[in-house]
Amino acid sequence: MSVGPKVTAKVSMESLFRIFTVPEAPDSTLGRIEQHLSENLEDFLSSHIVAQERPLYEIEQDFGLSQIPEQPEFVSDHTEKLLQTLVAQSVHTASPRFIGHMTSALPYFLLPLAKLMVGLNQNLVKIETSKAFTPLERQVLGMMHHLVYGENDAFYQRWMHNADHSLGAFCSGGTVANITALWVARNNLLAPSDSFAGVAAEGLPAGLSYYGYSRLVVLVSERGHYSLSKAADVLGIGRKNIVAVPTDENNRIQIDALRDIAREVTESGGRVMAIVGIAGTTETGHIDPLDEMAAIAQSFEAHFHVDAAWGGATLMSDTHRALLRGIELADSVTIDAHKQMYVPMGAGMVLFKDPALVNAIEHHAEYVIRRGSKDLGSHTMEGSRPGMAMLVYSALHVMGRKGYELLINTSIEKAKFFADLIDRQADFEVVTQPELCLLTYRYIPASLKRRLRAASPEQIAQVTPSLNVLTKYIQKTQRENGRSFVSRTKLTPAQYHREPTLVFRSVLANPLTTEAMLRDIIEEQRDIAEGAPGLLQRVMDAATEAGL
Amino acid sequence: MSVGPKVTAKVSMESLFRIFTVPEAPDSTLGRIEQHLSENLEDFLSSHIVAQERPLYEIEQDFGLSQIPEQPEFVSDHTEKLLQTLVAQSVHTASPRFIGHMTSALPYFLLPLAKLMVGLNQNLVKIETSKAFTPLERQVLGMMHHLVYGENDAFYQRWMHNADHSLGAFCSGGTVANITALWVARNNLLAPSDSFAGVAAEGLPAGLSYYGYSRLVVLVSERGHYSLSKAADVLGIGRKNIVAVPTDENNRIQIDALRDIAREVTESGGRVMAIVGIAGTTETGHIDPLDEMAAIAQSFEAHFHVDAAWGGATLMSDTHRALLRGIELADSVTIDAHKQMYVPMGAGMVLFKDPALVNAIEHHAEYVIRRGSKDLGSHTMEGSRPGMAMLVYSALHVMGRKGYELLINTSIEKAKFFADLIDRQADFEVVTQPELCLLTYRYIPASLKRRLRAASPEQIAQVTPSLNVLTKYIQKTQRENGRSFVSRTKLTPAQYHREPTLVFRSVLANPLTTEAMLRDIIEEQRDIAEGAPGLLQRVMDAATEAGL
Repeated sequence: MSVGPKVTAKVSMESLFRIFTVPEAPDSTLGRIEQHLSENLEDFLSSHIVAQERPLYEIEQDFGLSQIPEQPEFVSDHTEKLLQTLVAQSVHTASPRFIGHMTSALPYFLLPLAKLMVGLNQNLVKIETSKAFTPLERQVLGMMHHLVYGENDAFYQRWMHNADHSLGAFCSGGTVANITALWVARNNLLAPSDSFAGVAAEGLPAGLSYYGYSRLVVLVSERGHYSLSKAADVLGIGRKNIVAVPTDENNRIQIDALRDIAREVTESGGRVMAIVGIAGTTETGHIDPLDEMAAIAQSFEAHFHVDAAWGGATLMSDTHRALLRGIELADSVTIDAHKQMYVPMGAGMVLFKDPALVNAIEHHAEYVIRRGSKDLGSHTMEGSRPGMAMLVYSALHVMGRKGYELLINTSIEKAKFFADLIDRQADFEVVTQPELCLLTYRYIPASLKRRLRAASPEQIAQVTPSLNVLTKYIQKTQRENGRSFVSRTKLTPAQYHREPTLVFRSVLANPLTTEAMLRDIIEEQRDIAEGAPGLLQRVMDAATEAGL
Repeated sequence: MSVGPKVTAKVSMESLFRIFTVPEAPDSTLGRIEQHLSENLEDFLSSHIVAQERPLYEIEQDFGLSQIPEQPEFVSDHTEKLLQTLVAQSVHTASPRFIGHMTSALPYFLLPLAKLMVGLNQNLVKIETSKAFTPLERQVLGMMHHLVYGENDAFYQRWMHNADHSLGAFCSGGTVANITALWVARNNLLAPSDSFAGVAAEGLPAGLSYYGYSRLVVLVSERGHYSLSKAADVLGIGRKNIVAVPTDENNRIQIDALRDIAREVTESGGRVMAIVGIAGTTETGHIDPLDEMAAIAQSFEAHFHVDAAWGGATLMSDTHRALLRGIELADSVTIDAHKQMYVPMGAGMVLFKDPALVNAIEHHAEYVIRRGSKDLGSHTMEGSRPGMAMLVYSALHVMGRKGYELLINTSIEKAKFFADLIDRQADFEVVTQPELCLLTYRYIPASLKRRLRAASPEQIAQVTPSLNVLTKYIQKTQRENGRSFVSRTKLTPAQYHREPTLVFRSVLANPLTTEAMLRDIIEEQRDIAEGAPGLLQRVMDAATEAGL
């Protein structure tokens, strides 16, 4: 595409003025460029193909210069270059055959709204740079709080727009949300007293010493998200003090083990600071027994946090919300709107049952977030932030609770369909059944499938490494073929005596994924496996050697 | 606007399918809505008026419901509502008369690119969901690293795309950037040794105890951004251990005081973990003597961080970059692209001189950011993140270094013009002169202006409270009038014997702000003051009482 005469772009205050001035849409140069971009984006998004495989080192050549270019570039030239080097080499996360991660398709109406949001360029840290966006964000947090806790109208009338309290914090994502929750938990546990200014002021070593704890401990199942150990590192608690509690055969935390470990920690002078339940583990999609965990948290006077970054949206389904029963007992809950709420990347939230809880992390300054102001920045870890809450607001309104319910229900049904489909194959097996719309599975030679289930731990240990090599090969080859994408992870399945097992991981959130596509994905994986006789032979050799 | 027949929106899988399917642009319903939105946004952005004042409690009525709506809404209806309740009530941060904060105008070409970025919905935590966006982000960090440190080509060839190292971390904003820098500093100081697993694993109390420090201390001038005490809280160091070093009459850190305090901390068993220099204080825009601070940091073996969130872009001006001399000696530097780099909200960066420094915060998981992968997520505090780096990339290319240079130079010249203009008024005075494009000033009755400069500390203390009341009144009234906006802050100016003094704060970054507009702003402030004879009388009474 060529726009305007090709002369060299020049630096002048006049040309700079122009780029900061409202263009005369839509027949202006920028109008035409935008049209061209939109068409290209639509082509890209409707091509239904996972990114064309080009080796990363080749792509890196296009991004190799380390100096900021001296001279300006025409927008039209720059856009062409972007389409070729970047857009064509990005990942079609919206493709219905991209079923490997929690990033999925977006409803299209969010794109013009996102442009509006960016163009308004509000800064949510303070009212002075956000005005109506501040009550909007508070309302979104209120609605999500209501979804989780279901307090009455009087509660929300009192707290939703209250300057000194907050029903939650909007964050760039689930990691910041989880860190914020544990930060609040830590500061509330080691709170100020008559003779101690509190951990926020005095620091963690002084806090432990004042309260007489040898260490703070966070208990979470071994399926907990890595952001929790990151939080323990950041907050000074230490990664070792995130104690991984064993899970049962359904990847749910073992309640007895949780209680025993909490008791041991306490008896040895440590303090259980928080217990974290997971509502939708990243690897298998399972939900911890939240109500039982809440009871244990209460008995140890520990903060109960639920990481529902991915699974939280399930609360909008009347059919499935009981899976998360007990979540309303949590002191704090993380939900990512950019996961199962179909909002663009950058929309995490943490909700607090008690609106006064955030006072533990309150902060003020002279020029912004002054005391008594309604500035959102006084209760967030981040400072300047964009108005992403608007996209959550729009998605909630345009789709409605019932729209979300339908999306959630359909996703779970699709995952169950896929699990059945896999189980009916002679040469595939489901490793973890879907509770929400996530399942794991693998390819396994037909002759081995049944025998492995009955094998001894030693036999499984002998065969699994070669199966893992095969699984990894299939997953990488399928990704490189570029027609579809499933991810992979390493589990320790109970049915395989906890032997570290590589599996395919599939997330069925995209409403455009059809059953035919799922059949194709299985077919392709089988073809890849059968096209690698050497790897198959290694599996069969290992089986023979193990006496299977 | 009415789009399509007004029937009730219904929930059906078919209607949901439609919103996830590529619309047939541009004559589709969504195409028309987008056109309407664009026109409205352009109207809004070109109206050059600061947000219409409507009391916040009234706006809150529009955002009062706490329940997620059950039924879906038509996009067209929803959009109309958004334009009325949200867009019309947001803040015109791009207005050339909005000179009160660091949020300014955006170049228009970034808006269609932002829509493209949102539509691609990449997740930068891992290659699998970002592909070419990962090398692009690494290149942007490389270019910014080069801007600060100017290493040679071989250095960038070796490190820019290196899997196990990182020249920096892209963040949602300067606060996360500052926290990340101090997190790296803390973890490197309390690093693993033969008999200690390091602070990341063991926690801060164990780290202090192993290394034998009574406390960690961060030294920064009293003008330091509030995000630094937030960082000290989050990281478990404690807000009390951010020690504010006095500043000189130009709001720069006093080097002797810095050295003395560092020595006292060390002698009393504490450890100076980091010294933070500021390149553009939020309140006055001044730059610390970075080279001298670097020398002190080195002598105390402390991490030297420079918070150049706002001022860092000055490095692109050959005329002014010497103001930041010594920044190349910093171990880490924060720069926000959404401040003086004219990129939309949500684009912070922290750069590390030594690409191995980030290993102190490295983390991995089984399903993403595996060891040896080039996944950006292994070295960031955040997890899932959008592809904002693309907008920085585009801005750097379309404007070029020379374009930025011109913007920076013009802003600083404009600030100097404004300062001169103010000083020429009989009834205004500059409180802090601009070093970059930020200055502070206030209205002061002409008869008092000269006399106050020669007044005794006691006299100043007697008069200042009434002047502060007047300043606050003028600033609030001007904001409420809605034609223009300056912010306000509280300083302790040397010329007024450190008496807490409210001032107007003005940031002249918007290239569309004209000298005529600045004259208007002054005129309006004068009119407001003269329209408040009661407040003026209180000032004069206080002066009389003080014998002035």
